Amino acid sequence: MTAYDQLETRFGRIGSLKQVMSVLEWDHAAMMPVGGAAARADQVSTVELVVHELLTDPRLPDLFDEAAGQNELELWQRANLAEMRRIVRHAGAVTERLLDARVRQAHECEMIWRTARPANDFALVKPSLERLLGLVRETAQAKASVLGCSPYEALLDEFEPGGTVAEIDALFEALVAFLPQTITAIIERQAAAPAPLQPAGPFTIAAQRDVAIRFMQAIGFDFEHGRLDISAHPFCGGTPDDVRITTRYREDDFSRALMGVLHETGHAMYERGLPKAWQRQPVGKARGMSIHESQSLLIEMQACRSPEFLTFAAPLLRETFGGSGPAWEPENLYRLNTRVRRSLIRVDADEATYPAHVILRYRLEKAMIAGDLVLDDLPGAWRDGLRELVGIAPPDDRDGCLQDIHWYAGLWGYFPTYTMGALSAAQLFEAATRADQTILPGIASGDFSALMRWLKREVHERASATSTRQIMIDATGAPLSVDAFRRHLERRYLGVV
Amino acid sequence: MTAYDQLETRFGRIGSLKQVMSVLEWDHAAMMPVGGAAARADQVSTVELVVHELLTDPRLPDLFDEAAGQNELELWQRANLAEMRRIVRHAGAVTERLLDARVRQAHECEMIWRTARPANDFALVKPSLERLLGLVRETAQAKASVLGCSPYEALLDEFEPGGTVAEIDALFEALVAFLPQTITAIIERQAAAPAPLQPAGPFTIAAQRDVAIRFMQAIGFDFEHGRLDISAHPFCGGTPDDVRITTRYREDDFSRALMGVLHETGHAMYERGLPKAWQRQPVGKARGMSIHESQSLLIEMQACRSPEFLTFAAPLLRETFGGSGPAWEPENLYRLNTRVRRSLIRVDADEATYPAHVILRYRLEKAMIAGDLVLDDLPGAWRDGLRELVGIAPPDDRDGCLQDIHWYAGLWGYFPTYTMGALSAAQLFEAATRADQTILPGIASGDFSALMRWLKREVHERASATSTRQIMIDATGAPLSVDAFRRHLERRYLGVV
Repeated sequence: MTAYDQLETRFGRIGSLKQVMSVLEWDHAAMMPVGGAAARADQVSTVELVVHELLTDPRLPDLFDEAAGQNELELWQRANLAEMRRIVRHAGAVTERLLDARVRQAHECEMIWRTARPANDFALVKPSLERLLGLVRETAQAKASVLGCSPYEALLDEFEPGGTVAEIDALFEALVAFLPQTITAIIERQAAAPAPLQPAGPFTIAAQRDVAIRFMQAIGFDFEHGRLDISAHPFCGGTPDDVRITTRYREDDFSRALMGVLHETGHAMYERGLPKAWQRQPVGKARGMSIHESQSLLIEMQACRSPEFLTFAAPLLRETFGGSGPAWEPENLYRLNTRVRRSLIRVDADEATYPAHVILRYRLEKAMIAGDLVLDDLPGAWRDGLRELVGIAPPDDRDGCLQDIHWYAGLWGYFPTYTMGALSAAQLFEAATRADQTILPGIASGDFSALMRWLKREVHERASATSTRQIMIDATGAPLSVDAFRRHLERRYLGVV
Repeated sequence: MTAYDQLETRFGRIGSLKQVMSVLEWDHAAMMPVGGAAARADQVSTVELVVHELLTDPRLPDLFDEAAGQNELELWQRANLAEMRRIVRHAGAVTERLLDARVRQAHECEMIWRTARPANDFALVKPSLERLLGLVRETAQAKASVLGCSPYEALLDEFEPGGTVAEIDALFEALVAFLPQTITAIIERQAAAPAPLQPAGPFTIAAQRDVAIRFMQAIGFDFEHGRLDISAHPFCGGTPDDVRITTRYREDDFSRALMGVLHETGHAMYERGLPKAWQRQPVGKARGMSIHESQSLLIEMQACRSPEFLTFAAPLLRETFGGSGPAWEPENLYRLNTRVRRSLIRVDADEATYPAHVILRYRLEKAMIAGDLVLDDLPGAWRDGLRELVGIAPPDDRDGCLQDIHWYAGLWGYFPTYTMGALSAAQLFEAATRADQTILPGIASGDFSALMRWLKREVHERASATSTRQIMIDATGAPLSVDAFRRHLERRYLGVV
């Protein structure tokens, strides 16, 4: 076996073990009874330890050196090698002790947060969060010196390989330059029209599930390679050949569950579209969280909150729920699904205000990692930031700095990918519908095949063989900017043509 | 860390990885869409490989030697050490090549069997089974020389540690000495009475599930530590803190699903009753398949097909299914649930004829491993044996030598544990009800706590700290024999008091 082949074998094993963790995570969220938690934690940390040992095997550097000299390697093999090195650099940068301490502290902090949030008690979780932040900053420092970037970028790199603060700063500044006025203009315009009608419920879970499955199938989700289940926090998990998506239902409103399912279906289609031959290899993985989020937001926000999709969806919804009257007209459903409001909660935010929520978190988490913001000042900084960016302030910490699980679970450096995903979704959808004029009429008749063909070719099949930046340039002709997103908001919400 | 502590750490990891495999298996059977099969096979074989490497680590023998000299070790630690050695001997006896070849061949053979069985085509699967048998015999030889036993016993030892052919032969000869006449007597006696009445269906799956859960709770199953789901082949899987049992439902008959659930609940209670402190260690595992099967059969056959349990169950069943009339009387339900018939299919057999099915398979598989029975002669040997032991002959191979998955999945040496379990169940239940007079009245009122207390103390909590034989002696005052089983049949079916 050549050095490269040996590396492929090792990383194939790692790939399978990562799939195992993904199945365990899905089970944890969707199936596991509460009493299984402690044993599950042992199971997951054991698999993680095995992966960590494989990634820090002292024989790897020699194999990398030898493989680098193999002239016969093809493009994807070279890209695979680069991804392997990146992953190994991440793993090797932290000691087992630090990794373990961070995982344990994150677990502790998340548990306390689960009590602190409903109790509106930031002080309760602060000491644990303080320790966790310390360990995350230590991790960031260690990785930064190995990766040759800033500590924040070292964290970001786990979710968004190659992402830079300079790029995000520029994008977010460009957003801040127009978004507040745009939000105000949208809200005023919507307030001037009669409010959309709310279809009357209740809507049974069985019926919501039926219509969700119908929409998933329209998009191309293959139930021989996936499932739809229920969990408290909707997500897309599993493996490319067995994608598990979840949602949650409320009997008084079908729109949230349905839009959630469509969102996760976008993630699922990306996983399903990754190249089969490279499935267990690093180069075969999804490129990063901004591209991943672009796929879910493209389906949910760009494609499925469009007049075209709601034209297709309205009669199906009406029929499934036995509805009648003007509330079920496509035009009304479209207005319902594009309602813009200044709100406190990120996950409930519409596409216009969502970036403002993200920019707030990005600013705060960058400052925390840099040591410029201490936790004592976090609640106040949150209130001030939300007032500045969204235009309202939270009455308490529960709906303020306690609302998101991310930091309390040890995830700093993740938030900006949501908005990079939203920007990418707009830019990709604009390019797709421009390149193929049949995409929009297809969506209007429930046929997503033209859109999916384009996404598969331009995004999914490229996996991690090239950079996020290059994927955007090749697919849309330009690097990521706020322009398409701005045009999208102006078209959809302000009637600009 | 002492040598022993190092071993505990390693085997704790192995224990967690085995739990991971168990969760993956449950998922495979109960949740996984068909398209996930190939990736799942990669996942499972990767975890197996990791476990195999941990078990064949060349540093283990030194650690064992050193730990053996640690005088401070307690009884359970010494027993743990003995179990570790046994497991390592099994793992070390076969090369990775042989292990891998057997796993792959078993997978191939099982796949072909899935076609061959419904097609009644033994010839189709024979070549693959031939290769598989060859690899299993090679494995048995290799293990036999390491373990110092016969090749068949080396296979048996994986399921029934310490089990011997001499013991099984003696038990099965003792059974054959009375069972055929007893079966005839039972069938004649039942034929002389009017046939029991069949409650009229259909019985909805939701109602069957409801009442199954009610019975599980009566037995003591804790849904904070387990689930009930559906799979094609009912089983008990998961982990001691998160036991997953499955069943399958038929709308025309509730008894099969229900008795299946009660059976799996017996397995589940054993897993739940294993000592918490030793959960990930070899000594904390279930002792072996005969004790495991004794727990399921004790609950299903001894406790729940009793007049006492059916007195408790009848009104609940009547109410759940909205039934009325004599078919729902406890006496009638008892007669229905203790019907004895000569039949072709082991899994459908009643408790009186079941051992005959097992003895047939035991004889045949022992001969196959010894090389005394070639596969060309298997269908005929099956027909002859069934005629001799059960009193009927299968019309074809589908319901003959193709009926069970075991051999086609590479499992030789498993079958005798079913009947050792049935014998053990009778002996344990007799001892329990003799030791605690409140057990039977408790069952009659749906209160299993006295029975469970006895089983937990005498069986569950002992885990693998002592031998199967010693568990039986300590719990019942004598080693396993056919006597209690014989008395049980005579009492229940022939009116002997």
